[in-house]
Amino acid sequence: MALIVQKFGGTSVGSVERIEQVAEKVKKFRDAGDDLVVVLSAMSGETNRLIELARQISDQPVPRELDVIVSTGEQVTIALLAMALIKRGVPAVSYTGNQVRILTDSAHNKARILQIDDQKIRADLKAGRVVVVAGFQGVDEDGNITTLGRGGSDTTGVALAAALKADECQIYTDVDGVYTTDPRVVSQAQRLDKITFEEMLEMASLGSKVLQIRAVEFAGKYNVPLRVLHSFKEGPGTLITIDEEESMEQPIISGIAFNRDEAKLTIRGVPDTPGVAFKILGPISGANIEVDMIVQNVSHDNTTDFTFTVHRNDYQAALQVLQNTASEIGAREVIGDTKIAKVSIVGVGMRSHAGVASRMFEALAKESINIQMISTSEIKVSVVIEEKYLELAVRALHTAFELDAPRQGE
Amino acid sequence: MALIVQKFGGTSVGSVERIEQVAEKVKKFRDAGDDLVVVLSAMSGETNRLIELARQISDQPVPRELDVIVSTGEQVTIALLAMALIKRGVPAVSYTGNQVRILTDSAHNKARILQIDDQKIRADLKAGRVVVVAGFQGVDEDGNITTLGRGGSDTTGVALAAALKADECQIYTDVDGVYTTDPRVVSQAQRLDKITFEEMLEMASLGSKVLQIRAVEFAGKYNVPLRVLHSFKEGPGTLITIDEEESMEQPIISGIAFNRDEAKLTIRGVPDTPGVAFKILGPISGANIEVDMIVQNVSHDNTTDFTFTVHRNDYQAALQVLQNTASEIGAREVIGDTKIAKVSIVGVGMRSHAGVASRMFEALAKESINIQMISTSEIKVSVVIEEKYLELAVRALHTAFELDAPRQGE
Repeated sequence: MALIVQKFGGTSVGSVERIEQVAEKVKKFRDAGDDLVVVLSAMSGETNRLIELARQISDQPVPRELDVIVSTGEQVTIALLAMALIKRGVPAVSYTGNQVRILTDSAHNKARILQIDDQKIRADLKAGRVVVVAGFQGVDEDGNITTLGRGGSDTTGVALAAALKADECQIYTDVDGVYTTDPRVVSQAQRLDKITFEEMLEMASLGSKVLQIRAVEFAGKYNVPLRVLHSFKEGPGTLITIDEEESMEQPIISGIAFNRDEAKLTIRGVPDTPGVAFKILGPISGANIEVDMIVQNVSHDNTTDFTFTVHRNDYQAALQVLQNTASEIGAREVIGDTKIAKVSIVGVGMRSHAGVASRMFEALAKESINIQMISTSEIKVSVVIEEKYLELAVRALHTAFELDAPRQGE
Repeated sequence: MALIVQKFGGTSVGSVERIEQVAEKVKKFRDAGDDLVVVLSAMSGETNRLIELARQISDQPVPRELDVIVSTGEQVTIALLAMALIKRGVPAVSYTGNQVRILTDSAHNKARILQIDDQKIRADLKAGRVVVVAGFQGVDEDGNITTLGRGGSDTTGVALAAALKADECQIYTDVDGVYTTDPRVVSQAQRLDKITFEEMLEMASLGSKVLQIRAVEFAGKYNVPLRVLHSFKEGPGTLITIDEEESMEQPIISGIAFNRDEAKLTIRGVPDTPGVAFKILGPISGANIEVDMIVQNVSHDNTTDFTFTVHRNDYQAALQVLQNTASEIGAREVIGDTKIAKVSIVGVGMRSHAGVASRMFEALAKESINIQMISTSEIKVSVVIEEKYLELAVRALHTAFELDAPRQGE
């Protein structure tokens, strides 16, 4: 008998029929003897409907009041699921974030969970009840309703699992697990049985939108085993867990992530003096633009080139800022490119294997794909290439690192 | 500078445009220097939509969970109004029933208010904020969300006014006050400037659906001056207050109420023994049927006739029960009639005026309207007549008691 926290997202509870299906699934676990805490999002579309209503009053809705409105979305689904469970003879009770005191800071619309009072939930579990908790919401010290920001329901699930020391936190989604890469790009992409928190973070931040990054960080921090599963298909999903030393056989690379949302900016002929990086990036971050990759080459003739990437939406603004900087610091020119893509290989295995990067570069060279930027971390190598080569690069790397599923009939 | 509690119903907050209008009205009072607590219902139709959603899961939705769902309706409107006020430069804050701890018993879907913690509200008022409170909802001792049942927002308004010792509780509706009778029946019906709680209770229970009976009872008990006003038209409305001795000039009769929802049952030739009334009405109330008027005449030859009225929806059930009773106690026959109407004259003035009833009977006799039943209380005389004479009777009485507005041009 295990204690499991299950989180179902908006599409999984998008209609009364779907909620009934979720109730069936929960009942199955309950019948098997597990203690269950279920975290729900609002019905898909509902949060947007509520925000739209608020926008009709004001373009800039008061954050405190916006939270009062949008938090009603989950309040409806939790009660509906509790009813559907009780109808099936499964004792159940619903709680809002306020009722189980999911204490957050007061940063409305993007609050962070500080503490969860698990007393009420434990008492209900002990009494044999399934506890259904509203995701995405909490309450601050003064009793104001807060929300965690988009996708916050994953975080609620993980935080509850951590507070209750649950055996597993299951995140039900519309995919049946985490894949070696996007199956729409590589048909032979495979579902991973296991992946580490670190790898998952790299995969998620690079564009695999299965889980909220915050939730994965949280799970890693408190070592909550996290499992991604399909809401309505059976299957083991993907378990996200700590890097277990014993798994010697783990592949070097777990997956290939990619991202088409970035743009590249280069400032050329920058006088190479101490503090120059700050002079360039200070105004960028001052304009609230986030920078992803940063590359600075060794200097020639006391000048250097400095390249970085930003989200494509911020490209024009960043270009403007950079041009001002260039004339201030006496740089030669500013050039930019939006037709780029970032491809990354991710895997904790590469820590102990030399030559991973060169194997990557070799695979790309074989396809005559030019590498524009390189950036590495302990468990990741990222390259920026011309956007049109993206699919070709991902497929080549997927094969080179032996991630392809066996073809049918093989 | 007064402290006013204002309550706006579902149609008054039925759309974003309407909510903006309510904000304008509230701002006007605030600008005039009043302290304001505003109580809101859900947008019209929203509560029904939410109940329907719950019914899709279960014909008999779990009451606790139903309250979790339906309470979201008011939660949306309070935040929207707070936003609309803040947009206009009026500091405002919204609270759910739970947040200001409107403590109720645990009778889900029909809870009763036990206590209100006014500390938070007083602090906000002191800080110059308009406090917007969700009507219709509260929280029980264990932190479960409760609702007060239909129309409960009026009760929330009055309870808040009582707790805060407000100068007035204003109930905004789609009528501009309480009338001497239904203006659809008597075109010369007049708006009353004042009416007593007792009169209002008689008017309300007799079919003038302006205010919730519970709210009027509550207001009377705690002596909260209650004013009925139109949400979007200017005007003084009707003040419902205690019977002030000084108003010597008050009319004998304040209004004419009527009701077409009743049916009449008579059991004839009942052996007149002690306890016979209980033998007849016991089984009726045992079948959960509410009885309104009861008349028993003096007996002839040791038998008597016993007549009472019930809601028309309960007529068939009551007839069945009564026929069983008749054979048990050896009564002669049971007869019934659904084509009846009840007409009442209501007024605290009649306490000190003899002859009010006879003036009523005279007016009806003049129109050749036969009286089938009569029932009187301190401030009311009710008669049952044939339904088809209803409008004629109401008009005749309205004129006889000098309630008609002067005709235009007179």
